[in-house]
Amino acid sequence: MDQYVVIVAGGSGKRMGSAIPKQFMELGGQPLLMHTIGAFYRFNPAMQIIVVLPKEQMYTWNSLVEKNAFYIPHQVAHGGETRFHSVKNGLQLIQGDGVVGIHDGVRPFVSLETLQRCYDTAAREGSAIPVILPVDSLRLLQENGHVMLARDKVRLVQTPQVFLSKLLKGAYEQAFTPDFTDDATVMEKMGHELQLVEGNRENIKITDPVDWRIAQFILEKGL
Amino acid sequence: MDQYVVIVAGGSGKRMGSAIPKQFMELGGQPLLMHTIGAFYRFNPAMQIIVVLPKEQMYTWNSLVEKNAFYIPHQVAHGGETRFHSVKNGLQLIQGDGVVGIHDGVRPFVSLETLQRCYDTAAREGSAIPVILPVDSLRLLQENGHVMLARDKVRLVQTPQVFLSKLLKGAYEQAFTPDFTDDATVMEKMGHELQLVEGNRENIKITDPVDWRIAQFILEKGL
Repeated sequence: MDQYVVIVAGGSGKRMGSAIPKQFMELGGQPLLMHTIGAFYRFNPAMQIIVVLPKEQMYTWNSLVEKNAFYIPHQVAHGGETRFHSVKNGLQLIQGDGVVGIHDGVRPFVSLETLQRCYDTAAREGSAIPVILPVDSLRLLQENGHVMLARDKVRLVQTPQVFLSKLLKGAYEQAFTPDFTDDATVMEKMGHELQLVEGNRENIKITDPVDWRIAQFILEKGL
Repeated sequence: MDQYVVIVAGGSGKRMGSAIPKQFMELGGQPLLMHTIGAFYRFNPAMQIIVVLPKEQMYTWNSLVEKNAFYIPHQVAHGGETRFHSVKNGLQLIQGDGVVGIHDGVRPFVSLETLQRCYDTAAREGSAIPVILPVDSLRLLQENGHVMLARDKVRLVQTPQVFLSKLLKGAYEQAFTPDFTDDATVMEKMGHELQLVEGNRENIKITDPVDWRIAQFILEKGL
């Protein structure tokens, strides 16, 4: 079955305290986003890779591709007003029928095993959401105070969230509502049941300088 | 107000895939547990520090203290059957009235700022639980399937969980039940309201080899 990925890279770098969008910051001599693209290319060099970028970052991206002699084939779609609209724009570049993953541009450390689990499960069952167990205890905030939340009942959600492309494209035909926080919630609104699969601990979302330092370390030494 | 900490170090090292209990594994030339003790000593050298260790690890700990010429004053209590019993044993070494933190032996990176917030708030309000916002989306498992859990309603709980010592000692007079997963739940069972304060991202619980590598990095370079 054909495989696709839509990599959403919309960050501005504000949380990193940087003027450069974080997906363009250099990690081990290469912009972060290229590491993320590379993870999918190594998993399946024949995969159709679509990168969604804010329109105003296109020029910078093209310069970076040239400067780094970045050879991995990919297409670029324009980002939309929200993540929902960005993903929708990316999906429009997919013609065929197959399995499509939606992935955060700032998660470069998704493992080959996680990708295998996600794409295999989605091909078979329609969907695959990679999750891990939280290490810490949890509290649930309520109107008055907060209560304990059983750790073993909670899962931390990673990406790629992977689906049969025809199901996901159908789900993205819905009207947008603000409670679409990720692709899982878009699919659920259509009544689809979602399969959880195991993610990998180092598949972190790089959002702030602490993550960035950890990412440098993972890249240098592996984990 | 007098300050105390009970550092609970009961791990066996199984999850680390090591024969040495993880609290004794060397991080930057010193057993992990000594780094943790050091964090509290740096915050307040006058603090009474109580370390709870499984009885069968006492000999090893004493040898490590000697070998490393470890100079930070501390007392040692024996671990009990569960975490609840271990904490209770540790609390029995506290004579005076003041503020007591209960801390995981494998969280060496609690910051001075977090300690300040915890001990100050507990002195004023009776309790302080350090928490951080999760970065990832969350799923709540249910009997049939799972649902989205709003990220901004959830907090990841760290330690030290800090309390007025007389309140905590009172709470630990209760009969043990298996739903006492941490000190917060023990206090809540007594009807105490708990204050949440901000923790620090790098205050991770070192539970597996991935955490261990991150810990080495934090120690070498800071974050």
